[in-house]
Amino acid sequence: MTAPGQAAAHGADLWKQELHGSVSDPVLDTMNFLNEITHRYPAAVSFAPGRPYDGFFETEQIFEHLRRYLDHLEANGASPAQIRSALFQYGPTSGQIRELIADWLRQDESIDVSPESIVVTVGAQEAMFLAVRALIAGPQDVLLVSSPCYVGITGAARLLDVDVSAVAEGEDGFSCADLEAAILAERARGRRPRAFYVIPDHSNPSGTTMSLEVRRELLELAARQDILLLEDSPYRLVSPGRQLPTLKSLDRERRVLHLGSLSKTLFPGARVGFAIADQVVADGVGGTGLLADELTKIKSMVTVNTSPVSQAVVAGMLLAATGRTAEVNAETAAYYGDAMRVTLQQLAENFPLEDRAALGVRWNEPSGGFFLALDVPFRADNAALVRSAEEFGVIWTPMSYFYPHEGGEQSLRLSVSYLTHAEISDGIKRLAAFIRTQAAQA
Amino acid sequence: MTAPGQAAAHGADLWKQELHGSVSDPVLDTMNFLNEITHRYPAAVSFAPGRPYDGFFETEQIFEHLRRYLDHLEANGASPAQIRSALFQYGPTSGQIRELIADWLRQDESIDVSPESIVVTVGAQEAMFLAVRALIAGPQDVLLVSSPCYVGITGAARLLDVDVSAVAEGEDGFSCADLEAAILAERARGRRPRAFYVIPDHSNPSGTTMSLEVRRELLELAARQDILLLEDSPYRLVSPGRQLPTLKSLDRERRVLHLGSLSKTLFPGARVGFAIADQVVADGVGGTGLLADELTKIKSMVTVNTSPVSQAVVAGMLLAATGRTAEVNAETAAYYGDAMRVTLQQLAENFPLEDRAALGVRWNEPSGGFFLALDVPFRADNAALVRSAEEFGVIWTPMSYFYPHEGGEQSLRLSVSYLTHAEISDGIKRLAAFIRTQAAQA
Repeated sequence: MTAPGQAAAHGADLWKQELHGSVSDPVLDTMNFLNEITHRYPAAVSFAPGRPYDGFFETEQIFEHLRRYLDHLEANGASPAQIRSALFQYGPTSGQIRELIADWLRQDESIDVSPESIVVTVGAQEAMFLAVRALIAGPQDVLLVSSPCYVGITGAARLLDVDVSAVAEGEDGFSCADLEAAILAERARGRRPRAFYVIPDHSNPSGTTMSLEVRRELLELAARQDILLLEDSPYRLVSPGRQLPTLKSLDRERRVLHLGSLSKTLFPGARVGFAIADQVVADGVGGTGLLADELTKIKSMVTVNTSPVSQAVVAGMLLAATGRTAEVNAETAAYYGDAMRVTLQQLAENFPLEDRAALGVRWNEPSGGFFLALDVPFRADNAALVRSAEEFGVIWTPMSYFYPHEGGEQSLRLSVSYLTHAEISDGIKRLAAFIRTQAAQA
Repeated sequence: MTAPGQAAAHGADLWKQELHGSVSDPVLDTMNFLNEITHRYPAAVSFAPGRPYDGFFETEQIFEHLRRYLDHLEANGASPAQIRSALFQYGPTSGQIRELIADWLRQDESIDVSPESIVVTVGAQEAMFLAVRALIAGPQDVLLVSSPCYVGITGAARLLDVDVSAVAEGEDGFSCADLEAAILAERARGRRPRAFYVIPDHSNPSGTTMSLEVRRELLELAARQDILLLEDSPYRLVSPGRQLPTLKSLDRERRVLHLGSLSKTLFPGARVGFAIADQVVADGVGGTGLLADELTKIKSMVTVNTSPVSQAVVAGMLLAATGRTAEVNAETAAYYGDAMRVTLQQLAENFPLEDRAALGVRWNEPSGGFFLALDVPFRADNAALVRSAEEFGVIWTPMSYFYPHEGGEQSLRLSVSYLTHAEISDGIKRLAAFIRTQAAQA
């Protein structure tokens, strides 16, 4: 096909400029670049991917979980033909295991919602996509995000040509006053702020956690300004210690659309997440339904349904874990907690307090999760990353990747989730050498 | 939230009009209505859902398929830790079993493409969604569809606010001249036709199959008019007899983006499909990649990846079936063939030739697939459907559901895929009674 000012490509071949703009957008390209770097320097220690540690998994568990769910169906009176259909057929678009998820949420997260308000999705990513699609009706609508921000939400918005308005986190994380100012500014521009996306616990990428006080304040603000909150919380149950309540569990007037992930607590390969959308939707002519029903309709045109086989495996895990998720995840949570502790120790050793300020290096100290933010005295861009990988054998993620507009140019994200302590120790030494060399040349 | 001219709803509750237009679009609502009718009249014989028959499946097969794939990984030198990661981790966005799919396509479909040109998706539905998103860059771009048309493609387009231009099927199905006229008409309106979506084999909803001659003509037309073809072929390997070659297997210049489904040939519950997108994409500054890479980027913001557990089960099935899919599917194909034959026989018996024309009833005679089209002498709309279900105990799908613009008002779709012969026989009798009564009152 022929692009303006270009010679024709062969036959049916295409020019990238004639495809949808999302495929040329940095938010979709950055992850590709990271993968390429990781592939190009296989010997480098990589603090880049937010990959869960899988050492506690055993392949045979998949068979056991599947069997446990089949036994559960049988114990609940399902015939062999019904069990067969439950696994082999498409099944309901809204999901087959909503009751089990509702039970688990009630017992382990103090979230009390009806199964009908839940939509089972292909990971939390699809839940994000469905929520953005449902809530953003046209170009006047805007999605607010805490910034720096998980690329999954900005990427989903980009696919739908949805405008994102970034609310910058301060040193202590998110501030309600900044969000309210952003809402008012968008309204002054004639736009309609619809929802605010945030990861309250051990955020990706910054690692910050929102205090209980701020959570309460945020719910009040959402009510006052009449917006919804999109709460994403993948890292809470795999972090050490007792977690603060989710926004959803504090939500008294259905202000929160909760995006649920089981990828970190159960396992990534299931690709089973969910949305809790208990908001009532009125059609203006007397009919009402739940926002979950609208998300389900949208899902029918994205993936039709979440694999019943995957749902069955996850259901088997929920049957074993419900009522004791903290206990089941204790070993994993301790593992991640140790990794974070070792990383912070190594940073402290490699950057002694006395020269840290002079060097211009600092980092935050997350209480859990996979990530921390490290500020450096130079541009932490792709060129710096290539140099770090090639000459120092260490890979990280430029924090600027996570800013929808600008920001984070002198900061990087470290992910500690799947490295061994020896790798962390070695990696931080390499990183310190890179930072000192780069700083000296800046 | 407050809608114009409405009293405020409670708290965070929403008005449907302020959500994205897709949720109020008939294309997304019709399937809900059908489900509701089916639920409301459980004793009715339903010719509505395109549900595969699952009597040939056995629950234990899932364990066997999974085990076969694990054994395959081990035989190919994977360590226990690598096998564990292959199942439990996210895995590559483009899919884990692309080589096995490529082998299967080469042996059983004479489609010779590299694994790199394949993207594994959550059913063919996600493949459709990715293709539409990649190819439609803005409001000037238009997607052409054969009409009547599968709602999955028009639904995906609706989610993305993409304009669809319908090319009406004639009595003998699709015509290249009509497509070419539609392309030229769109260009005359200043729009850019990007691709044409079609199901060449036993189409959903009309049941028609495109001849070999028309397939060749269509490929030439696509080259001449510089558009891509989106080929969707879920019903070929489950239909009796030898099938015509796919458009993709006849494609010599990468004009075809093939949307692959394994839901009917292997099983629906896996939710594993794929796209073949071997088109070269040039970035205009010397770089090239495949369209599959761009689809993969988009997928990373929709579902991240297709469940490795589902992929593993499907891989186990492919390992058993490759090279002999026709043989493996012979029993199923014969089952569906018989169902179609019995349906056609029952129609002929219930509407004798002598009064068929006077009554204004006729139908096509598909050589396979799940569906046939039946024309009736009255409006086959939702009101007629409710009456048919309530008074005659038989459910069908209004053909108008499948027309993106208008059409099909006096036609209905019958799906024969999962009823027993006795149910078909009983259902067609009920349908004939309904049609005769309705015709007499029209």
